[in-house]
Amino acid sequence: MPNRLTMPMGEAMYTQRAIRRLKPDPISDEDIKTLIDAAQKAPNGGNQQPARFLVLKDREIIKKFGALYHEAWWAKRKDQGWNGPEDIPKDNKTMQSAMRLADEIKDAPLIVLGCSLRPGMENSVFPPIQNLMLAARCLGIGSTFTTLHPTVMERVHDLLGIPKDISVLCCIPLGYPRGNFGPTVRKASSEVTYYDRWEGTPPW
Amino acid sequence: MPNRLTMPMGEAMYTQRAIRRLKPDPISDEDIKTLIDAAQKAPNGGNQQPARFLVLKDREIIKKFGALYHEAWWAKRKDQGWNGPEDIPKDNKTMQSAMRLADEIKDAPLIVLGCSLRPGMENSVFPPIQNLMLAARCLGIGSTFTTLHPTVMERVHDLLGIPKDISVLCCIPLGYPRGNFGPTVRKASSEVTYYDRWEGTPPW
Repeated sequence: MPNRLTMPMGEAMYTQRAIRRLKPDPISDEDIKTLIDAAQKAPNGGNQQPARFLVLKDREIIKKFGALYHEAWWAKRKDQGWNGPEDIPKDNKTMQSAMRLADEIKDAPLIVLGCSLRPGMENSVFPPIQNLMLAARCLGIGSTFTTLHPTVMERVHDLLGIPKDISVLCCIPLGYPRGNFGPTVRKASSEVTYYDRWEGTPPW
Repeated sequence: MPNRLTMPMGEAMYTQRAIRRLKPDPISDEDIKTLIDAAQKAPNGGNQQPARFLVLKDREIIKKFGALYHEAWWAKRKDQGWNGPEDIPKDNKTMQSAMRLADEIKDAPLIVLGCSLRPGMENSVFPPIQNLMLAARCLGIGSTFTTLHPTVMERVHDLLGIPKDISVLCCIPLGYPRGNFGPTVRKASSEVTYYDRWEGTPPW
């Protein structure tokens, strides 16, 4: 049992805000091991454990990867019809914050890429990644869940020596928060829950 | 903050064994709300919250769904070249246990189907489902992560009135365990972690 992950489950889950403003302070290898040990405990299809964790710590590699992330982020925005900062709605705090992350990710102390050894087993990567992010919260390390865009994938594979048949499913920048952990804004569970049939009303 | 989810994170993660043998005792609506409240706190793409939770409690509906689950489980095995119980390796405990679940799921006290409102947002359903399963562990409720097979999907949609454009991504049977919670068997984190480049060795 990892004595370090002592935070009550509810506290970690209820304060797992997306942390996109990261201090440059490094994350220790001991902490990284704790995060991935926790990730490894998550459920996965038939215990085949197809998830692999590519940890980026080297400053030069993160800088090069950060340029690809920035390009990918804007490629996703162009798919939405937004071509530059002036198109991002000023009142969309999540998007404004994500835009800043696309600029700043090159300075993140740590990035973990969630990869799958086999196509069709993506659903066996995300529960481990959620464990990793919750464990980070327990250690006071912030993170946010992001994905890349197909336009940069081949170059990401080339930069990091990832074989062509391995999928890179998500990109988790991590670091100590410049801001604070805190509550998330979500719909009430009654709005996303159905009982017994689609749109069947829950009793709360 | 949900006072009920007080178990230390590490304890919950490290004892989240797949629980496939379930007692018939019902799970209260208060507990179900606690599970889905926790699920709702998980990260998701752009806070779009596409995950929906279809809770099955009605005995007749679970019985009918259970028949489809059983068919789906065997359809997956046939895809693997296994046509009946005699083909399932006796020493594959996970598969033997999963085969029994396919018979017994019709008696599960609770099933939650994880659904996505939008194609391409599957990765925003699995972190909530992992929160739900960890929260269940905190309450002493067992669960296991399963998926269905395309061959039954149309009938699942028909049975539960799910619109055609909604994806049903996973099926989580839940109940108090007949066995015990306990440790999972997983590869060491050093075997699934790379540093800076694919197959780069971690320092532990």
